[in-house]
Amino acid sequence: MKKHKLPKGFLANGIHCGVKKKRKDLSLIYSEVPCKIAVLFTRNVVKAAPVILAEKQLEKNKKIRAVVINSGNANCMTGTRGLKDAKKMVHTMAGILGVGKNEVLVSSTGIIGEYMNMSPVINGMKRLAKGLSGEGIEDAADGIMTTHRFRKMVSRTFTAGGKKIQMTGIAKGAGMIKPNMATMLGYIMTDADISKKAIKNTLIHTTDHSFNAITVDGDMSTNDTVVLLANGEAGNRRIGEKGKDYEIFLKNLKAVSVELSKMIVRDGEGASKVIEVNVKGAKTPKDAKKTAEAIAGSLLVKCAVLGGDPNWGRIASSAGSSGVKFNPDKMEIILDGIVFFKRGKAHKSFNRKKISVFKDKKVKILVDLHQGKCTATVFSCDISKKYITLNSYYTT
Amino acid sequence: MKKHKLPKGFLANGIHCGVKKKRKDLSLIYSEVPCKIAVLFTRNVVKAAPVILAEKQLEKNKKIRAVVINSGNANCMTGTRGLKDAKKMVHTMAGILGVGKNEVLVSSTGIIGEYMNMSPVINGMKRLAKGLSGEGIEDAADGIMTTHRFRKMVSRTFTAGGKKIQMTGIAKGAGMIKPNMATMLGYIMTDADISKKAIKNTLIHTTDHSFNAITVDGDMSTNDTVVLLANGEAGNRRIGEKGKDYEIFLKNLKAVSVELSKMIVRDGEGASKVIEVNVKGAKTPKDAKKTAEAIAGSLLVKCAVLGGDPNWGRIASSAGSSGVKFNPDKMEIILDGIVFFKRGKAHKSFNRKKISVFKDKKVKILVDLHQGKCTATVFSCDISKKYITLNSYYTT
Repeated sequence: MKKHKLPKGFLANGIHCGVKKKRKDLSLIYSEVPCKIAVLFTRNVVKAAPVILAEKQLEKNKKIRAVVINSGNANCMTGTRGLKDAKKMVHTMAGILGVGKNEVLVSSTGIIGEYMNMSPVINGMKRLAKGLSGEGIEDAADGIMTTHRFRKMVSRTFTAGGKKIQMTGIAKGAGMIKPNMATMLGYIMTDADISKKAIKNTLIHTTDHSFNAITVDGDMSTNDTVVLLANGEAGNRRIGEKGKDYEIFLKNLKAVSVELSKMIVRDGEGASKVIEVNVKGAKTPKDAKKTAEAIAGSLLVKCAVLGGDPNWGRIASSAGSSGVKFNPDKMEIILDGIVFFKRGKAHKSFNRKKISVFKDKKVKILVDLHQGKCTATVFSCDISKKYITLNSYYTT
Repeated sequence: MKKHKLPKGFLANGIHCGVKKKRKDLSLIYSEVPCKIAVLFTRNVVKAAPVILAEKQLEKNKKIRAVVINSGNANCMTGTRGLKDAKKMVHTMAGILGVGKNEVLVSSTGIIGEYMNMSPVINGMKRLAKGLSGEGIEDAADGIMTTHRFRKMVSRTFTAGGKKIQMTGIAKGAGMIKPNMATMLGYIMTDADISKKAIKNTLIHTTDHSFNAITVDGDMSTNDTVVLLANGEAGNRRIGEKGKDYEIFLKNLKAVSVELSKMIVRDGEGASKVIEVNVKGAKTPKDAKKTAEAIAGSLLVKCAVLGGDPNWGRIASSAGSSGVKFNPDKMEIILDGIVFFKRGKAHKSFNRKKISVFKDKKVKILVDLHQGKCTATVFSCDISKKYITLNSYYTT
């Protein structure tokens, strides 16, 4: 099988170092030249040590060379020792790679409140760096997974600024996902040459419609990080803050981010169906998103989807509890293309027990508030007994 | 077995009229004299017809004589026909009881989006009124239940204003409960004589610490209603807006409300344990409540409690995602009396797999933010596979 190639100038690797029992647990993304970077971190007040450290590093240094990521331990609520451990990871990796100490970022994911088992991580770093390759992204994608069922990786090529540009992203999700990137790690690499402002703006914009538009269980994590790295090796005319090239870049970044986000939802712990919640006709974009989030996050709605029950009353109720003002009589509720409520009335005298909805792997909930022109889409998944098992009887 | 008696001047009854297959589905609370009333309704934008109607009635009329409640159908998202049905219930009941049309309120609970099956309700009303009795509160309590496992009823007597006063409350909950009274019905009757302002203030205050301080699944309903009725038949010196009598009344109302709220949580669909979340050391009461709600509402925390897993990282993470600012290093986390995190460190080198917590039917989560002096308590319950079954494969 043909191996997946990284954008020009990027190398990657993933290994099993020993934080976890068997699965890969240490990954490295490396660029042969300094990268421009845009990062979005968790908004949780409780931030993991690597997040605190990375925020500091990025105050001083705007270009980076490498990101090292361990899974199996979140290095969170670990106080000064945790911060020291994160620094040691950075310094050791920088030393091995021969780059500056602020040119390496570290991310962690896994259990909260336990100190890092540092020796396997430190000992594994040489082997990790040695195995770097332009075809190593699959191994890196595997090294950031926890309870996942499949690897999350998306690649696109497009032309902008007169050159062919590649963009490749990997992500980690499953469980504990909700808007605001809960336990979400995402790394997107591109060889595009792009301005500082444009890289930042495009990441903020696309994350709002992708990594921040998904929910698995409503919990928000302490380690969430989305990184966009651009090393300029494609040699294109620099992409600025507007114009056609900017739009092309934005469109492709959005496609990669949305695709990765959908994969995260599809791999929600114990999930069997992806739910696409579309809200139309809201007064403001914020109203649209808030309504969509309330529906997508409702446990009763998730249960209805699992059971194939067109219980649209739950959808109306969750929309109504979002805090957004609207006239319920104007609301329209369409499930998998079937109109259930319109103009103040349940549509015809459906015997809803006989109507089949939510049967496919992908289901659609469309709510039109008929209050304005704004829309939002949020992706979610159903909840199953397996979710309960996974999260009750194992410390994850 | 001795039957439970109502406060002086109150009568009640509950019957099976035929909205549901077998269980009681129609209840009536009646006072021989007009009652002062305080009511709190759902804050959901989608309000059921009886809620919309009652809000209008109470604009005109401040005293009422009766409340009629049906279970099995929420009469919500039923448009003008739903409103007409609710009015017909009020008018018919008022006619039978021989009281004014605005002296009867109606409440409904059950499925959303289906028209009321009116004939059994209307036909049952005469029988309902005929059976009114000073010992009928247990039947009334049964008539408002849906998927409940046990009847929720609390009674207290106390002395205020020189007389013995009784206070008796019934409630309906189970599933779909979160702060702001989701699918919560509560009716508290007292024979106290109390001022208009005092009855309102005491209900607002106590609801904030009881019916609005519980969460089962984070969903908020369209029909929530908490009613406090006072008919003055105890003949006490009128309770005013402050003073000793006010405090005594408040204390007892709080006790009744908290007890009913705990019963609701204990009867959460599929729940096996009641979780008491105490937050201390917050800067403001709002911060304290918001933090407690975030912890109590976290699906991952509920799973941890179900599995008996002292996964305090999830508690830290959910507190941190509440939007409240605090210093995580100062946070203290105590589960069932055992300190797990203090002064920036996991307490000692616990092997947490060997520590037994969350084993009892009542479990305690205490979080001290060490940022101030404000506290809050929120009650919740664990989540189980039974919850998923109850809400996936049956339209409830």
